[in-house]
Amino acid sequence: MTQPIIINDEEIFEYHQGGKLNATPKAKLETKRDLSIAYTPGVAQVSRAIAKDESLAKEYTWASRLVAVISDGSAVLGLGNIGPRASLPVMEGKSVLFKEFGDLNSIPIVINQSDVDQMVATIIQIAPSFGAINLEDIAAPKCFEVEECLIEALDIPVMHDDQHGTAVVVLAALINAAKVTGRELEDVKIVVSGAGAAGVAITKTLLTAGVKNIVVCDSKGIISASREDLHSSKQELVEVTNPNNLSGGIDVALVGADLFVGVSAAKVPEEYIATMAENSMIFAMANPDPEVDPEVAAKYAAVVATGRSDYPNQINNVLAFPGIFKGALDAGARRITPEMRVAAAHAIAGLVGDDLATDHIVPNALDPRVAPAVAEAVAAASKINA
Amino acid sequence: MTQPIIINDEEIFEYHQGGKLNATPKAKLETKRDLSIAYTPGVAQVSRAIAKDESLAKEYTWASRLVAVISDGSAVLGLGNIGPRASLPVMEGKSVLFKEFGDLNSIPIVINQSDVDQMVATIIQIAPSFGAINLEDIAAPKCFEVEECLIEALDIPVMHDDQHGTAVVVLAALINAAKVTGRELEDVKIVVSGAGAAGVAITKTLLTAGVKNIVVCDSKGIISASREDLHSSKQELVEVTNPNNLSGGIDVALVGADLFVGVSAAKVPEEYIATMAENSMIFAMANPDPEVDPEVAAKYAAVVATGRSDYPNQINNVLAFPGIFKGALDAGARRITPEMRVAAAHAIAGLVGDDLATDHIVPNALDPRVAPAVAEAVAAASKINA
Repeated sequence: MTQPIIINDEEIFEYHQGGKLNATPKAKLETKRDLSIAYTPGVAQVSRAIAKDESLAKEYTWASRLVAVISDGSAVLGLGNIGPRASLPVMEGKSVLFKEFGDLNSIPIVINQSDVDQMVATIIQIAPSFGAINLEDIAAPKCFEVEECLIEALDIPVMHDDQHGTAVVVLAALINAAKVTGRELEDVKIVVSGAGAAGVAITKTLLTAGVKNIVVCDSKGIISASREDLHSSKQELVEVTNPNNLSGGIDVALVGADLFVGVSAAKVPEEYIATMAENSMIFAMANPDPEVDPEVAAKYAAVVATGRSDYPNQINNVLAFPGIFKGALDAGARRITPEMRVAAAHAIAGLVGDDLATDHIVPNALDPRVAPAVAEAVAAASKINA
Repeated sequence: MTQPIIINDEEIFEYHQGGKLNATPKAKLETKRDLSIAYTPGVAQVSRAIAKDESLAKEYTWASRLVAVISDGSAVLGLGNIGPRASLPVMEGKSVLFKEFGDLNSIPIVINQSDVDQMVATIIQIAPSFGAINLEDIAAPKCFEVEECLIEALDIPVMHDDQHGTAVVVLAALINAAKVTGRELEDVKIVVSGAGAAGVAITKTLLTAGVKNIVVCDSKGIISASREDLHSSKQELVEVTNPNNLSGGIDVALVGADLFVGVSAAKVPEEYIATMAENSMIFAMANPDPEVDPEVAAKYAAVVATGRSDYPNQINNVLAFPGIFKGALDAGARRITPEMRVAAAHAIAGLVGDDLATDHIVPNALDPRVAPAVAEAVAAASKINA
């Protein structure tokens, strides 16, 4: 463990004074001539051209490379349902990351909480303002339906990052963790703890990537055909997971498992971890308190990853989302497909290269090579499937 | 007349390549420490604080000083109903002006065309993202209802600039034109040609400022009690305008009038203009073709103003909206009241000072003193009425 970064509240609030973003003109307006080009009468020529051919909006407005980070603040970090205004600093931060890592303009849009239909209608109404939509911190199961409806309705990339960004980085980590522990993806036995946005998406992405055996647990235990309390997103998992029809608690699932993936914050006792396979892998991603204490995990597992920056192997979405959106926009992709996300994971994993080790399975979150490499892989994958 | 500014299309399209705005982080993200402050885990402290006390969103997010420029593209410049995507360059330009002149962050939001209720619902849903809303280029009579509903529903300043920005600058021009021609506002006989967004708002603002005699004409002639084809916004005018119950065409209205205000693009023949009062005033604001040719107008009127930058006395909204929004936000005003708009007009008129002349009744559109002076006057007026 490296030294944790100590930051005091004063410093944090000082930093956030007035917010973290500016909207900045690309060119100065100093003369009447500037004004006549940027605004009236010159701008009318551009509007007239787009009115004749809407595709020109891609070329002559900022919208085509603009990512809206959209949230209703219903599931923010570890804070839960804090509403739109309180979620704004997180969304602003995300917009900053889009610019810094993906070189994409991004603005936060927070929306009042409402039902799925109203939320979808609102986003569809304003969608011509943007080139892509990153849904963020929307509670499950609402997030699934909102994302699905928007992907169906819009012709721009839409991705709920809490689902797919997380899933991509977990897959990247697994690709390298499997390599360093001498496993093949198709043989790895996985337990996912948490069946919310992240848990469901991780499960689906790992299956797309070739994994065969995943058991998902929620707060009531293993998700199996015998459960009668499952809403649709969990019900879908029944058909594609738990091949041995296990039922019971997570203790049952963990016996002999190769990989534990924690995305629920529910603590897992040491005695359960002790029953996992030899040479196992533990990705305990709850922040700031991982589901398994990293020191305890290290007693049993060959590879330990967390969501924290002060431990090795930080599984951080910033490795994925800037490059995924950049790649999709670079390629003019209308959708971000499962294949594009798997390509993103392989690109992230590939950057570790010769430095691969049990305590180095993913690149550093600040590694500037990541987003361009991910973008390239995503753009290429989008073309294969187009 | 000064030389018109000649700009070729190539130059305009080159300038608009990729759009005119960037979303820029206020501080660099270079270290894990930066990341921990701007994003997780540090940002959670800020979100937690706002969740406890929503008023802190004003201090710790960009939203509180962010003006959304919102349009459905239904009445754009002289181009008409060109839709949201084609209107984007105009809205981006407006956001650039907010930054350059008002030092306010601003982003364009264009929305798919829909009925008033859906449009209002959409804007209310996303309103927590912004500190103020500038409605732009929305067709009459929809614009009146949209603005009214939003002002009622939201606790942030909302203003439809095509109505009120224009009205403020016309009032400023009239204050100085009356002074230079030796008139009192309450004695001035005014004909407004055009009963759309601008015409209605100009009329109401001039009445608020003390004008007594205004006759409004639309494409069918004088708006009077005998008309049976008037929707509600025009119907309202019947009660407050046309004190002598004129009826007929604009030719009837113009006989003996002191001021002609053109906001309709409908050409007015020279023989009608010839019937106006001695020493008259003509504000012919249609762009690029004024309702009265400026050279013809000069044969009869003591003061001629247009919307064009290549003639003297340019009546340009940029003199008003940056300062009005800045003043309202500086003062923490929930609404932009008629009194605040009248104060803005006096501030604009006042800046001309000793340079007042028939060909210099308003400040130059690029004069950097304007927005701060307007903001100060607006903030002061908001406090008087609070």
